[in-house]
Amino acid sequence: MEIAMLQDKIVGLAELEAVYLDRGMFFGDGVYEVVRSYNGKIFALEEHLARLARGLAELQIHGIAPDEVRRRVQKAFATAGIANARIYFHITRGSAIRDHLWDDEIKPNFFLMVTELREDKQEKTNGIAVSTEPDLRWKRCDIKSLNLLANVLARKDAARKGCGEAILVNEQGFITEGAASAFFAIVNRAIRTAPLAANILPSITRKFVLEAAGNVGLDLAEKPLTPQQAIKADELFIAVTTRGIVPVVRFDDNVIGDGKPGRYTKLLMEQFRTFTLY
Amino acid sequence: MEIAMLQDKIVGLAELEAVYLDRGMFFGDGVYEVVRSYNGKIFALEEHLARLARGLAELQIHGIAPDEVRRRVQKAFATAGIANARIYFHITRGSAIRDHLWDDEIKPNFFLMVTELREDKQEKTNGIAVSTEPDLRWKRCDIKSLNLLANVLARKDAARKGCGEAILVNEQGFITEGAASAFFAIVNRAIRTAPLAANILPSITRKFVLEAAGNVGLDLAEKPLTPQQAIKADELFIAVTTRGIVPVVRFDDNVIGDGKPGRYTKLLMEQFRTFTLY
Repeated sequence: MEIAMLQDKIVGLAELEAVYLDRGMFFGDGVYEVVRSYNGKIFALEEHLARLARGLAELQIHGIAPDEVRRRVQKAFATAGIANARIYFHITRGSAIRDHLWDDEIKPNFFLMVTELREDKQEKTNGIAVSTEPDLRWKRCDIKSLNLLANVLARKDAARKGCGEAILVNEQGFITEGAASAFFAIVNRAIRTAPLAANILPSITRKFVLEAAGNVGLDLAEKPLTPQQAIKADELFIAVTTRGIVPVVRFDDNVIGDGKPGRYTKLLMEQFRTFTLY
Repeated sequence: MEIAMLQDKIVGLAELEAVYLDRGMFFGDGVYEVVRSYNGKIFALEEHLARLARGLAELQIHGIAPDEVRRRVQKAFATAGIANARIYFHITRGSAIRDHLWDDEIKPNFFLMVTELREDKQEKTNGIAVSTEPDLRWKRCDIKSLNLLANVLARKDAARKGCGEAILVNEQGFITEGAASAFFAIVNRAIRTAPLAANILPSITRKFVLEAAGNVGLDLAEKPLTPQQAIKADELFIAVTTRGIVPVVRFDDNVIGDGKPGRYTKLLMEQFRTFTLY
């Protein structure tokens, strides 16, 4: 008889719930998004849905329309009634007996969580330390997929060094991005960050940061940095949906600027905050 | 209230089963193995358990001993009572509210399936076509992790071209391995395959193939091949636990040898079969 085993318990394969056969688990075969709300309103939902749709198309996951995803996100958010919420959702290709090849008729699975988002004010006020870690990820980081093992290992390694983020460095010696954030430097009144390509997530927050940078008079330099260049930058920061803009005051063993959040970083945080008001 | 949503259904976060919070799903944060049985006996279980233990150590997943895994595999196999079985099992870091960082006290999750393995005799008799696909995987393919999206996409692309396996080619122009198999060439009475490194899975079947190669008088050349070299090889084949040795008779648009399974490939299949008897 075909069977399954959950921890130490044997069950018939036919009785197994679909979630245990989710290709998200077997292969990381799915995409996800994290959106947040500010005071009862979801921020940049359309941008996140557009990125999700692009990821689904890249992975050839069909059968779930962006309109339906929007409806579910809004329904869940309304039900939860949390003013400052983190909304995580993923769509996987679906459930089936494990096989690399998928059946084109497979139906996708949808999963979502709404949790309270507690802002870490201290990291915004004092800044964080970051450590460089090798970028071991796959070659399609522009797809926000569930294949995140390299990110997870880098973040843990950084945390062990007392750092609040891992900054990933590729084989060519350039910084790509943070393990779970975009990475920016301020150098001579210009904002510098790696250009969007297959090795970088098209970060939604990045887009708003660059808009804010224009508003505060910074030039834009979309060029990757080396760690050696980052150390000498006037200011450094990371940015991501759930944490916003977070100043970086230490990079590996090097103090950045005077070891306090920089002037432009603070201006950008202020600008960014105006985007989230309504 | 913190909530979750499964497809279109809202549930309280606290009522959510642990499987929905499995880090295997969120991050592909786990390792797996596939073993098979021949006529009621599991083949090479110890080798697979050793590789699993190595993967768990690399990912710093603690709290489950190889002895316990062996016990569960044997118990499930005995319960299923399938003579020629495919036994898939994975161990993930465990279940927790989604966060890249894990708590060191987290308890791993174990999942296993025993299914009937139906040998595809035709592909062994006639051989298969393969197509080359870019190797987009992460840089630690020596860990048999659940991050398999690149493999899945390559396999699908190959299948669309009518091919039975995708042969992955890295940025340097060398073949690493199949998307779900090891890859071998016979060139001038030598067996040629990429050397084990971080970009290759230490295949258990590979080990037995190389042993068989010695038995039939082939020299060993652990050097990677380019597709151009593969096309000119005397014989090609892939090897993997569930399919055994499978001759490759077409490589992209090129017929290999006389388009039939080669002499040494057939000798190796015979040799390999003797390893599985008892």
